[in-house]
Amino acid sequence: MADTTPSPVLIAGQWRQAKVVKTFQADNPATGQKLPALFPVSDWSDIDEALTAAAEAFEAMLDMPGTKLAEFLRAYADKLDARAHEIATTASEETGYPVKPRLQEVELVRTIDQLRQAAACALDPSWRLPVIDRKTNICSVLEPIGPTAVFGPNNFPLAFNGIAGGDFAAAVAAGNPVLAKAHSSHPATCRLLARCAHEAAVATGMPPGTVQLIYGMKREDGTRMVSDPRLGAAAFTGSRTAGMSLKHAADAVGKPIYLEMSSVNPVVILPGALAERAEEVVTELTTSALMGTGQFCTNPGLVFLVEGQATEGFLKALAEKYAASPCGTLLSKGTMTGLDEGIQTIVKAGASVVTGAKPADRAGYAWSNTLLRVTGEQFVKNPVALQTEAFGNATLAVVVKNTGELAKALRHCEGNLTGCIYSAKDGRDDEHYPAVAKVLRTRVGRLLNDKMPTGVAVSPAMNHGGPFPATGHPHFTSVGLPASMRRFTRLACYDNVRPHRLPAVLRDTVANKG
Amino acid sequence: MADTTPSPVLIAGQWRQAKVVKTFQADNPATGQKLPALFPVSDWSDIDEALTAAAEAFEAMLDMPGTKLAEFLRAYADKLDARAHEIATTASEETGYPVKPRLQEVELVRTIDQLRQAAACALDPSWRLPVIDRKTNICSVLEPIGPTAVFGPNNFPLAFNGIAGGDFAAAVAAGNPVLAKAHSSHPATCRLLARCAHEAAVATGMPPGTVQLIYGMKREDGTRMVSDPRLGAAAFTGSRTAGMSLKHAADAVGKPIYLEMSSVNPVVILPGALAERAEEVVTELTTSALMGTGQFCTNPGLVFLVEGQATEGFLKALAEKYAASPCGTLLSKGTMTGLDEGIQTIVKAGASVVTGAKPADRAGYAWSNTLLRVTGEQFVKNPVALQTEAFGNATLAVVVKNTGELAKALRHCEGNLTGCIYSAKDGRDDEHYPAVAKVLRTRVGRLLNDKMPTGVAVSPAMNHGGPFPATGHPHFTSVGLPASMRRFTRLACYDNVRPHRLPAVLRDTVANKG
Repeated sequence: MADTTPSPVLIAGQWRQAKVVKTFQADNPATGQKLPALFPVSDWSDIDEALTAAAEAFEAMLDMPGTKLAEFLRAYADKLDARAHEIATTASEETGYPVKPRLQEVELVRTIDQLRQAAACALDPSWRLPVIDRKTNICSVLEPIGPTAVFGPNNFPLAFNGIAGGDFAAAVAAGNPVLAKAHSSHPATCRLLARCAHEAAVATGMPPGTVQLIYGMKREDGTRMVSDPRLGAAAFTGSRTAGMSLKHAADAVGKPIYLEMSSVNPVVILPGALAERAEEVVTELTTSALMGTGQFCTNPGLVFLVEGQATEGFLKALAEKYAASPCGTLLSKGTMTGLDEGIQTIVKAGASVVTGAKPADRAGYAWSNTLLRVTGEQFVKNPVALQTEAFGNATLAVVVKNTGELAKALRHCEGNLTGCIYSAKDGRDDEHYPAVAKVLRTRVGRLLNDKMPTGVAVSPAMNHGGPFPATGHPHFTSVGLPASMRRFTRLACYDNVRPHRLPAVLRDTVANKG
Repeated sequence: MADTTPSPVLIAGQWRQAKVVKTFQADNPATGQKLPALFPVSDWSDIDEALTAAAEAFEAMLDMPGTKLAEFLRAYADKLDARAHEIATTASEETGYPVKPRLQEVELVRTIDQLRQAAACALDPSWRLPVIDRKTNICSVLEPIGPTAVFGPNNFPLAFNGIAGGDFAAAVAAGNPVLAKAHSSHPATCRLLARCAHEAAVATGMPPGTVQLIYGMKREDGTRMVSDPRLGAAAFTGSRTAGMSLKHAADAVGKPIYLEMSSVNPVVILPGALAERAEEVVTELTTSALMGTGQFCTNPGLVFLVEGQATEGFLKALAEKYAASPCGTLLSKGTMTGLDEGIQTIVKAGASVVTGAKPADRAGYAWSNTLLRVTGEQFVKNPVALQTEAFGNATLAVVVKNTGELAKALRHCEGNLTGCIYSAKDGRDDEHYPAVAKVLRTRVGRLLNDKMPTGVAVSPAMNHGGPFPATGHPHFTSVGLPASMRRFTRLACYDNVRPHRLPAVLRDTVANKG
């Protein structure tokens, strides 16, 4: 039973019917059944209108004081707070994630916190790195980059949502309007968030094109949008295939695009750590690897161990724990198919199945918790296929001959969001740590000790980034304020400009250097 | 008369014969005659070896203290100082620029100053934006990005040289080895600079792959190099065609590449400024437009004026001044051909010739000082062709109907390094300034008032950057320390890492926030 009219889109400050190419419905991944709400895939004319409205909003926002941006972000956060249960319930229907604790108590709380942190950053211009050189009468500061298109992922329907998540908060706090594309798996969640955003924008007097939402667009319209001259930048979180297609289009015209794509997040467990606390590490790894059915960008998908009895014992215990753990719901049929294909690719590349690698024995989209293994030699021979991201509840163990081989194997790792090293507390791994860390740290955005990678704190020190293919550029982070805001800025310099014509932040009397 | 043996390349700390694909000689643009020194175009095996040496140097430099980087940069600066006249003479032969003041007293002084400023920045880690969050035990800091390939341009044989200029200084001060590709028009200058760099590296005990020089490579090897996994990043200054070819290859594998390509640097002269000081502006524009025979990245190639008698008088005076000024030497035959083609493209797109647009009546590579004009209507109809960069001593004036049309015409401007607005000192242009500035500022890296764009001060507040096609990303600058160093960094985050394993800058006791 579907609705008869597709949900209106939010363009230029109005909820109005889309120019519809076709319609779609999301489904409930816990049951595999279609949900009733009908959503439009927009024609280019919708996107065109939204881009023009965003460009107009951008001109109006260019010198908007941080106090006004903060006011909007806080009003939006308050609205999300007030409708928390409705939002969590809607998101749960579309994602299969539990309403509590995951959606209402963790992810929505984080989302609201991000908006409030971004508001606080908007109030303090120091993150814009103002530099005033009185000797030459030149000054510079980071300024908003322009209308920003945000494509959110499936796996965090709130905290990374295009109309409410980290990219949205960072882009707006930096002074940019956002044109969000809803994820096709949770359009009703996006609609509800956009209603809150729109109400907050109206209440705080933001220009009509500040927040806009489109549910779907043709693939070629997506690439056209990210290369449009009216756009300032784009941000994308999702699959490598979709990300690369957008990147290709944006790069061709020198349009900044920030991408978070695939990451297998290597975890190295040094022999001393295994000897000291194998059971503890089995528990930590299982929890981290199966959390959210493994659908975290920072899921530990690749574990390096040194061969021997301790490692065999560890893998046996891990396999038992995987087999005994419930198989969670995957976000969509596509996620399930993708996981199956990823596992098959890894197996074809030489990995053997320790446990899992088959459909789960339950309703909805689910796959059995999977543990695979290869030798270090195999890994080094076929590193690309063996680093296939099998997105979901699957882990590949790489067992190398000795500690000397660890650094060699790690040299074949592509760029990742995170890399973890477990070492003994008593110092017996310390002779091996430096060689491993030296190779790993330049290949990841965040290096961890004795801790699994799945927690991504919204800390000013966080880096949720890393070398390609984890992201498109290792200088930037998508989590952590105010650092993530710098992505949505251009460097603006004023040379001999008359003082009263300067932006407020450069009119201040205190000179900054550096 | 050519040498019989090609000049050795500098790879892995050794001057050695190249694996030669073919050889080339530079010529003296003032005479059009070939210079005797013979230089090799290297085979891929040379580049391959250099990349491996650079990767090894990078691992050795990863935690190198800033004091050591500064020591090297200062030793290098001292060596350039000591051989100033030899360097300027060599560069003059290859570029046609005068030894004094341009090369020895201006450009080399700037080059040495950049190296010393970079050394000072290497000593103070605050530019790395360290953030320590004690609550979560997470910290982050900008760290070197990896071996950096630098392609210098023809027009600044010292200050932007791949082995001595701003990109080199910034990359090394940020902690990266540099693999430079000499410009084919001034290889002997590059060789001399590389000798100084190498001597300084040996004297200060830097790893062998810290500074390397290759004179030429096949086009396909250039694209292969910028996408090689061993490389951290590339920096290129030069033509849009060559830059885009490298960008395409680097982008495909998510490898950072910083480009400075084409810029026509719009100058808007408001009616009040013209009424007040037309003669002064004619002089300023002539000086700026013909300086270095117009071969500055920030050359004012596009001038916007409002139609009327004052503008006609201005253009007449300007044309007379252009015609009366000596025609300078162009850097190469290719530059001359390119200028001719650029002028022809602009004329075909509707511009009329006010003066010039023909070969200069003198020896060597030279073209007559050229002034073209179109109406605002024509510009808006054909903005792409009319923004062709005619690199050299040519200027296009765009005459719009009235002040209201200025902002409309400027909306058709592509990204530029600079944008200038001349307005009356007595305030009579103030009603028009905001609308013009609002459009112009988001399309340029540096906005100037009452000043021509050709001076690019090495100030910490400088932005020598801007939206595409001026560069590949509007967030970054290639001039201005320490900002330009940030290009050659990745964000590195440490989560729960044991304190003694952290980089020194994060072990400090004072917490930073933001």
